[in-house]
Amino acid sequence: MNYRMIIQYDGTRFQGWQRQKSGKEEKTIQGRIENVLSKWMGESIEICGAGRTDAGVHALGQVANVELEEAKVEAPYRIQSYLNEYLPEDIRIIRVEEAGNRFHSRYHATGKTYAYHLLKANCFDVFRRKYAWQMEQELDVNAMREAAEHLLGSHDFAGFCSKASKKKSTVRTIHEIQIEENENEIILRYTGNGFLYNMVRILTGTLVEVGCGERAAAQIPELIACKERKQAGVTAPAQGLFLEKVYYD
Amino acid sequence: MNYRMIIQYDGTRFQGWQRQKSGKEEKTIQGRIENVLSKWMGESIEICGAGRTDAGVHALGQVANVELEEAKVEAPYRIQSYLNEYLPEDIRIIRVEEAGNRFHSRYHATGKTYAYHLLKANCFDVFRRKYAWQMEQELDVNAMREAAEHLLGSHDFAGFCSKASKKKSTVRTIHEIQIEENENEIILRYTGNGFLYNMVRILTGTLVEVGCGERAAAQIPELIACKERKQAGVTAPAQGLFLEKVYYD
Repeated sequence: MNYRMIIQYDGTRFQGWQRQKSGKEEKTIQGRIENVLSKWMGESIEICGAGRTDAGVHALGQVANVELEEAKVEAPYRIQSYLNEYLPEDIRIIRVEEAGNRFHSRYHATGKTYAYHLLKANCFDVFRRKYAWQMEQELDVNAMREAAEHLLGSHDFAGFCSKASKKKSTVRTIHEIQIEENENEIILRYTGNGFLYNMVRILTGTLVEVGCGERAAAQIPELIACKERKQAGVTAPAQGLFLEKVYYD
Repeated sequence: MNYRMIIQYDGTRFQGWQRQKSGKEEKTIQGRIENVLSKWMGESIEICGAGRTDAGVHALGQVANVELEEAKVEAPYRIQSYLNEYLPEDIRIIRVEEAGNRFHSRYHATGKTYAYHLLKANCFDVFRRKYAWQMEQELDVNAMREAAEHLLGSHDFAGFCSKASKKKSTVRTIHEIQIEENENEIILRYTGNGFLYNMVRILTGTLVEVGCGERAAAQIPELIACKERKQAGVTAPAQGLFLEKVYYD
């Protein structure tokens, strides 16, 4: 039986989603979940996550699937409560449901939404200090919105990616970039068919530079076209980034 | 010159607001702020906070005042930025302003608002785990609202207080109890002219017991009248409590 799990985590103290070499599994979210399942089932269990979030990145709606042998089938609510009993409190299983046998959380994902939280300059929120990037100057949100418009659609984002592969396509489609502002924060919410390694953080670093007046919004099309990582903005710190949602047909 | 400071803090790792004996000042918020000011001024500086929050309790708008000798007067923004530079990131000075010479943050406070956050049963929010009390069963919010109505007004709250003093009055006036519900949380927001030691946490524990069906809302008047701590509800854990605002005329 194949199960789909929806997972929330505070990435602060983890080395990211993806399981690391033996001995370091406990530092990753995937490793923690696999270890609990493996002990329970008495055999090594692997789970497959939709997005390999980096060290320090958080998730509200990560999706993973796990296959259990027929002899070990459990009711979804039992899997959820067992995992939540034995996982640390910064990882929570929000939902478990039966999925079709062929369901694969990564290959079948049709899109994702990531949110990046900026804490505005001179705004104080000690409760957000691990979950946002503190700005040092005021941002021109209108300029950021104009720049974001140029990023929409299908482009080769090779320049907005760390360690771009020359073999795999670096073309991605961004459907929407919402820029929401509240009293303390500016939240950049990206929805697309997929994102390259570090892409959301580099897009954010670039938009912040536009907001600071260091770049013009109108230069974004050239920046995409040049496909050079060093021309794009800084990689925004991991702590402001949240994987919010993964979409399936 | 007398200054008023507005202070925000995450109480998680502190032993509360109030300075403790020498050697333990660093475990309290007052001690931390006083130590930074004392080093700067080259003499022992004392500050006076409006509310002595307990270990683990948070603040969005604690108020304190500090007097500096005339020779050591500084512009308010300088005091703010110096403190924020040397304080740990879980204590932030939101504002500093000049206050009248006679201003005393505690004696002149005319009221306070405290909020208590409950995380609903079967709701998941890893980012709130240190800032809310996780409920194990669904609460009847209407019953809680009915019970809260009985608490409004001036009463002798001796039964809703840890270590009630027999010498000092235990009469307090609660102006308003707002009970707000969102997807994940129920927030109880208490505004009154003052609160006794642990009073907000005991009121919350009592209202939660009403919400769980363990007590009837209609019993609250008797409960107030009996003035016995052991008849009231449990003391809700510190981590869900926030000092939101202190009022002055």
